[in-house]
Amino acid sequence: MILAGRGGPSDSQAPGYYAERTVAGGEPMSEAWTEGDTVALVRAGAPALLVRLARGPQKVGNEGVLDLTELIGRAPGTGITWLGTAYRAVRPSLSDLLGSLRRGAQIVTAKDAAHLLYLAGVGPGATVAEAGAGSGALTVALAYGVGPLGRVISYDRREDFLEAARANVRRAGLEARVSFRLRDVASDGLDATDLSSVVLDLPEPWAVLSSARSSLMPGGYVATYTPTYNQLERTVRALRDLGFDDVRAVELLERGLHVGEGGTRPAFEMLGHTGFLAAGRRVD
Amino acid sequence: MILAGRGGPSDSQAPGYYAERTVAGGEPMSEAWTEGDTVALVRAGAPALLVRLARGPQKVGNEGVLDLTELIGRAPGTGITWLGTAYRAVRPSLSDLLGSLRRGAQIVTAKDAAHLLYLAGVGPGATVAEAGAGSGALTVALAYGVGPLGRVISYDRREDFLEAARANVRRAGLEARVSFRLRDVASDGLDATDLSSVVLDLPEPWAVLSSARSSLMPGGYVATYTPTYNQLERTVRALRDLGFDDVRAVELLERGLHVGEGGTRPAFEMLGHTGFLAAGRRVD
Amino acid sequence: MILAGRGGPSDSQAPGYYAERTVAGGEPMSEAWTEGDTVALVRAGAPALLVRLARGPQKVGNEGVLDLTELIGRAPGTGITWLGTAYRAVRPSLSDLLGSLRRGAQIVTAKDAAHLLYLAGVGPGATVAEAGAGSGALTVALAYGVGPLGRVISYDRREDFLEAARANVRRAGLEARVSFRLRDVASDGLDATDLSSVVLDLPEPWAVLSSARSSLMPGGYVATYTPTYNQLERTVRALRDLGFDDVRAVELLERGLHVGEGGTRPAFEMLGHTGFLAAGRRVD
Amino acid sequence: MILAGRGGPSDSQAPGYYAERTVAGGEPMSEAWTEGDTVALVRAGAPALLVRLARGPQKVGNEGVLDLTELIGRAPGTGITWLGTAYRAVRPSLSDLLGSLRRGAQIVTAKDAAHLLYLAGVGPGATVAEAGAGSGALTVALAYGVGPLGRVISYDRREDFLEAARANVRRAGLEARVSFRLRDVASDGLDATDLSSVVLDLPEPWAVLSSARSSLMPGGYVATYTPTYNQLERTVRALRDLGFDDVRAVELLERGLHVGEGGTRPAFEMLGHTGFLAAGRRVD
Repeated sequence: MILAGRGGPSDSQAPGYYAERTVAGGEPMSEAWTEGDTVALVRAGAPALLVRLARGPQKVGNEGVLDLTELIGRAPGTGITWLGTAYRAVRPSLSDLLGSLRRGAQIVTAKDAAHLLYLAGVGPGATVAEAGAGSGALTVALAYGVGPLGRVISYDRREDFLEAARANVRRAGLEARVSFRLRDVASDGLDATDLSSVVLDLPEPWAVLSSARSSLMPGGYVATYTPTYNQLERTVRALRDLGFDDVRAVELLERGLHVGEGGTRPAFEMLGHTGFLAAGRRVD
Repeated sequence: MILAGRGGPSDSQAPGYYAERTVAGGEPMSEAWTEGDTVALVRAGAPALLVRLARGPQKVGNEGVLDLTELIGRAPGTGITWLGTAYRAVRPSLSDLLGSLRRGAQIVTAKDAAHLLYLAGVGPGATVAEAGAGSGALTVALAYGVGPLGRVISYDRREDFLEAARANVRRAGLEARVSFRLRDVASDGLDATDLSSVVLDLPEPWAVLSSARSSLMPGGYVATYTPTYNQLERTVRALRDLGFDDVRAVELLERGLHVGEGGTRPAFEMLGHTGFLAAGRRVD
Repeated sequence: MILAGRGGPSDSQAPGYYAERTVAGGEPMSEAWTEGDTVALVRAGAPALLVRLARGPQKVGNEGVLDLTELIGRAPGTGITWLGTAYRAVRPSLSDLLGSLRRGAQIVTAKDAAHLLYLAGVGPGATVAEAGAGSGALTVALAYGVGPLGRVISYDRREDFLEAARANVRRAGLEARVSFRLRDVASDGLDATDLSSVVLDLPEPWAVLSSARSSLMPGGYVATYTPTYNQLERTVRALRDLGFDDVRAVELLERGLHVGEGGTRPAFEMLGHTGFLAAGRRVD
Repeated sequence: MILAGRGGPSDSQAPGYYAERTVAGGEPMSEAWTEGDTVALVRAGAPALLVRLARGPQKVGNEGVLDLTELIGRAPGTGITWLGTAYRAVRPSLSDLLGSLRRGAQIVTAKDAAHLLYLAGVGPGATVAEAGAGSGALTVALAYGVGPLGRVISYDRREDFLEAARANVRRAGLEARVSFRLRDVASDGLDATDLSSVVLDLPEPWAVLSSARSSLMPGGYVATYTPTYNQLERTVRALRDLGFDDVRAVELLERGLHVGEGGTRPAFEMLGHTGFLAAGRRVD
């Protein structure tokens, strides 16, 4: 099934720019495949298909049986053919992961997820709590962003949401970085400490801000995501009242650009609104 | 100088959610300080001050001499007093890093940087090439985003830009992740392979796209950032002509929200335009 | 059929703020109805229904027969009942007129129409040429805006478009202010002089700008409406090359606001793009 | 002083497209000048200079003395030279009028003024009440928009605002269409009836909506302009509670386009926010 080899195991030790980078426990994107890795099967004009790398044949949705055994030890990028179609087996991008979510609840857009991570100070190695888990879209983005050295706690007060989020995180292959907790943080607060970031995507974020502050390390950020100005206003006032520093509130408008035969113009279709973002930092 | 200890070395081994996470070579945000770490000194109402953690007194800009020796082995969040002012010593956020840049060239905004990383598939462990280095703002964002397991190559054809970028990356403490190369990629192409991402912030990105494609692993992305419609149009057409998949073009508008005594409204001040983002993926 | 009289003819001569305003040939909005007037029948929750005021019963679309004879000489606002439903007979607003258009071609939005009129210097008494007529949406807005003392010439090179526009203008009751001319202004230019405004809603406005300039009085404006940046760019360069003054180019984004039970937020639905507006003035 | 005559009085009776249009009391834009008309002196690269047409020399600001006597009876567009500079004497556009305002208070932008007029159903012949008068910017736009057959009542509770507005309206030459009234409409309501439109640009428009409704003819509109979400929300709820129909709320974002040597792009400078517009219609 392996077609044009983009290198077997030996190649990954070849001298090169990044040979020195191999670190126990990490997952640099060009590292050879190991069992349990999440593989994105990509081809032109189609969304990526996410599959867990395992020995032996496995069922892939309703689409048939797939055997990826030969990928093990090979480098990402290797070509395979399945059901007569050529694919490349590659490390999934965040875009692949978000595109593969089973949707249920409304999900955060990529632009908002990326900016929320920025405002919340989420980067590789971060320790983040999120509430609520919702459909798990933001959970996946957080788990991706903190990398193999970071950790995410995802709270929800509804068991069914936690299950949906957990399934989406598992599908993305990021379950080792996330712990799910059934808890109503609005009434009971967060049961975590020394967090670098707290991200709140729930209707009444202000009710959680005091607990969030206690759970943050100094230097840590809380970021919120709410659809109405009323929620935003109350959140920003609570951030100030609680002594958060560097309080900010923004929204992002994403406009597609269309390049066609007749010329280039902004796209006609556009989301008029997604949500307002707010953030504050604990500095003492 | 250490005030309210947020824990000495022993605390960081305390049982807790993240105790298991300590990984050689990584820099989880709550890990104890070691020599050479970049420290952000934060306090309410002021931008973070970045300092390299060293033994003994060091000069900090024109602002005096600072001795952070006692931080070594302590956990981030520890309080210190310097020149009569109380600070917390914390891991710098990307916002701290971008806010500490010595500006020269026009710099990419945080919203655009965050979305460029998303579109370019940049995450922990990524291997990214960037051209041009410019002032190093985007370089810093990339080096932050790839984490300790990723690598960045930053090209520029001008020695002075490379030097400015290098200085900004060093100030951010991210120099171990970045190699700078003096090279005119528009004429000579990229001298790298197996990249997961290429980010182009230069006037004629289309001239580099063919070489960028060759340098990418299958599954890898190229993303571009240009101010004019004309550049965007030519870039998108080149992406299509070269067989890139999933070609996208967007712009983001960031609108601040002002919460004041009299109510809440969008901010009067706004950047009307920063740049157009385009991206494509190599899938074969 | 007349219900709650908002006054018969005598009332319109009653002393009041505007009694002095009655001017031969004009149509102040509160003037008593005369035969031939266009009546908007309005009621809560429904779009206005436009009917021409005539003596005797008339057919209204497929909806039945209506006799408005009794309105003649009465003041706008009078209530009538038709087919068991109560209406008020009022002077149509521009919104009523645009909402009653038979659509065929893409039509200009109200925000763009209103701003085009502003940029083109169109106000009461203006003498405007428009090309092309398209579906007549902009023609109706222009004819409304120039008032009873202004005039509009509407050019199109296609007979079918002229007919559609003429039908829409007639439906709006504004045909006395508009003359339609079958002419390809891109090749043959405008055959008009002493215009105060020229409005171009066609694919290649630059081809008409020289002729438009000759047709304008000093102080007159030309305004254009085009979807792509390529057209905009070429138009603006032509405006400058031809010596137009005060050259401007803008676009308007309209964002609805949603006030609901749960609070207030921008609407999710939004048109991402309609068209770019450009304008210039002849000053010599 | 008359240079290139664009025609003396006889020309205005020349046969042509608009010869039939001459209506007593009206001011079609190409009509010959008469004493008391407001003249805009225009030249390339400079804002228009507004002067009242009078017999004999008059002082123009601090810029010297000007004698326009010879214009009387001539057609707009006639060239004159003043202080060594060539001008054209033309009918002022709304843009000229708004550009010549003496600013004091914050003024409504042209895009908002044009759209407010649309939402409020203001067109030629309308009878409009406005509160507050503010600096008179919106008053001028309304007086322009209603034409010579319409009327505007402008309320303010502050004598100094009324005076400023009156001065700006007089400068625009539109004082015959406007009556100014010192009145606190929030507490005392409007003392007008049979209006086609009410435009509210004051902090608490909801306090005036009931009175506004009574002052409107059936079919008439009220439109409001407020900076904060809080005001907008309360206004929209009041519009609904009072039974207004077709309630709408929007904002317009105006984005300039820059066409330069290097290509075309949105302008960097942009107003992030001006105000929210809301409107409703009385239909019964």
